Amino acid sequence: MHVGILGGGQLARMMALAGVPLGHQFTFIDPAPDACAQNLGQLKMIGWDEPEAVAEALADCDCVTFDFENVPASTLAYLAKHHQVQPNPSALKVSQDRLTEKEFFSRLGIPVAPFASVVSRPELLAAIETIGVPAVLKTRCLGYDGKGQALIRSTEDLEATWQQLENSDLILEGWVDFHHECAITAVRDFQGDIKFYPLTHTVHEQGILQFALSPSPVNSQWQSSAEEIARTVLDELDYVGCLTIEFFVSDKGLIVNEFAPRVHNSAHWSIEGAVCSQFENHLRAISGRPLGQTQVHGHSLMINFIGQMPSQAMLEIPNLHWHDYGKKPREGRKVGHATWCVHDWSGLKAGLKSFESFLNQDRYQTLSGLVELAD
Amino acid sequence: MHVGILGGGQLARMMALAGVPLGHQFTFIDPAPDACAQNLGQLKMIGWDEPEAVAEALADCDCVTFDFENVPASTLAYLAKHHQVQPNPSALKVSQDRLTEKEFFSRLGIPVAPFASVVSRPELLAAIETIGVPAVLKTRCLGYDGKGQALIRSTEDLEATWQQLENSDLILEGWVDFHHECAITAVRDFQGDIKFYPLTHTVHEQGILQFALSPSPVNSQWQSSAEEIARTVLDELDYVGCLTIEFFVSDKGLIVNEFAPRVHNSAHWSIEGAVCSQFENHLRAISGRPLGQTQVHGHSLMINFIGQMPSQAMLEIPNLHWHDYGKKPREGRKVGHATWCVHDWSGLKAGLKSFESFLNQDRYQTLSGLVELAD
Repeated sequence: MHVGILGGGQLARMMALAGVPLGHQFTFIDPAPDACAQNLGQLKMIGWDEPEAVAEALADCDCVTFDFENVPASTLAYLAKHHQVQPNPSALKVSQDRLTEKEFFSRLGIPVAPFASVVSRPELLAAIETIGVPAVLKTRCLGYDGKGQALIRSTEDLEATWQQLENSDLILEGWVDFHHECAITAVRDFQGDIKFYPLTHTVHEQGILQFALSPSPVNSQWQSSAEEIARTVLDELDYVGCLTIEFFVSDKGLIVNEFAPRVHNSAHWSIEGAVCSQFENHLRAISGRPLGQTQVHGHSLMINFIGQMPSQAMLEIPNLHWHDYGKKPREGRKVGHATWCVHDWSGLKAGLKSFESFLNQDRYQTLSGLVELAD
Repeated sequence: MHVGILGGGQLARMMALAGVPLGHQFTFIDPAPDACAQNLGQLKMIGWDEPEAVAEALADCDCVTFDFENVPASTLAYLAKHHQVQPNPSALKVSQDRLTEKEFFSRLGIPVAPFASVVSRPELLAAIETIGVPAVLKTRCLGYDGKGQALIRSTEDLEATWQQLENSDLILEGWVDFHHECAITAVRDFQGDIKFYPLTHTVHEQGILQFALSPSPVNSQWQSSAEEIARTVLDELDYVGCLTIEFFVSDKGLIVNEFAPRVHNSAHWSIEGAVCSQFENHLRAISGRPLGQTQVHGHSLMINFIGQMPSQAMLEIPNLHWHDYGKKPREGRKVGHATWCVHDWSGLKAGLKSFESFLNQDRYQTLSGLVELAD
């Protein structure tokens, strides 16, 4: 089967690594000449906003998917006329606009933070009046990894925040006082069968995922609620493929932050930590094959490498798996990750110290805190 | 790191799938335009007997290895002048000639079947006199998957066998009356550290590997002897990378059949069944990185697909992993494999029936026999 992927980044790269053994071939659409998936298939350097050129480049493909959610929905809609596009373009469309997304969750009775649309200064003032501070002002579209958003701690921050973001359609979201964050990845096939991975404890800094631990004892009580929410979303969207929902865990239980209609950084651990990875399951789903098992082998801890790869001496740590995306170093860029797999929780606690010499002090403390919280 | 591989078949393909996450890039040397590794790197269509052209094509590579042992040793020796070639060419040279190989094992005190060099009809008669029948007459070089050999059951077979093979340098090997066959894969790094995978129970038919089960209870008593033999061989050859030794298990214990100085079909199960696969460990070793763990997750059963791929409905079997090499169907050709991973032996016995509807009756009976023998 020939699979077309809009986007040729690390998610496309890991999808291809999972798909080659299934007998798939890949074409990636990405305007970047150094798109890091390129060695695993054919790279076509075309802008995602050129639907006709994209459709022509993917003419031979049996199915089409995407590795990031800022592909223009109009391009996907055009492609869907001629191709099997999964997940379906309407799911992408919901996720692309934070306001539509929040309204979608609210309509389904799924708890989200209080929110309001903001297109003018008076609307911002009115929204602050209703929602209160602290609150987060975000662009409705095109935000990722913490970009396009600003925290309003008090009304004193209002003016600066407004000037920073006023040229976009905005959403104001109430601040959620959370204990920690977590995410669930689920996969649904054409028949509507769904499999869930265990909840992953995630830690973000400056809006970028730093660590992910799955499963973590801190989340076991939330697994069934998260599955119920994910099932509702997947069924409502008539979704095919992998989807991740990110949650805040608060005194009020799970509050949904957002969903991603694709494979997701918080489930990279599934490559080694689960029987069938999110990447393989996404491909199994969209190509109409039986889903693979989501059972885990033990606990997996994923560490994102941001800016540059660390020393490969880290490979000395037993049971560590290395993922260098082959990207040039650049500040704030996700260039790779490692996943450390351990059989049991006591082994995880005992072995954590191995990482101390490979991470800077702040990162190691954050990592230790993640494990302590769960203990 | 840029790795050059002589050969672009399924072993090169699976090496590349393991190496891309390590940050490696690959160039494959293979005269076949449809070499199945080609989508995972750059394919250079050059004959292996053109050392200068091969060296030029691999000029940018940091290290060079090979995916089959019939690469001319002279080509490797030439490459070794300019490149880091691992495993070292002398190991390959020993393995290429069955007579040199048997003499090598004998010199190290490692048990092999009785053998004799045969270059003439009188020598064959003398060898039969000493070794007896049944015996196997084999070409010393270029045999694989059962090609280039003939069984002499009684002296009546002598004439036909001689006529079939007389134009090659030959070796006569005494027939080993074995209970079953097994193989050990080990990996050695530049510092001489060695890690061993568990013994794999192998089943061949018509000289082609059909099934591999690892670990199997039938082999646990032989693990330490096999490791000792492998350690002796690896140290003697000052070997870097993965090596597999194939054994007969007889009344007299382990008898070595042959070794392969490369990743090997009998350890394909390690992709999912062990913490670090043979492919990743081969690359870790030859690129000077720390070796990965060879511990297993449970029991793994590998099924070779020969001639053509079966129906993908087989993916319904829980915990089954699929490996389609992307090769055109052809009789007797290894086109893919599947590995089925189970936690415990009772689960393996209970689940085996799932395969009945996907294999023809003979193959399923052979598979059942493999499990019964171990039980």
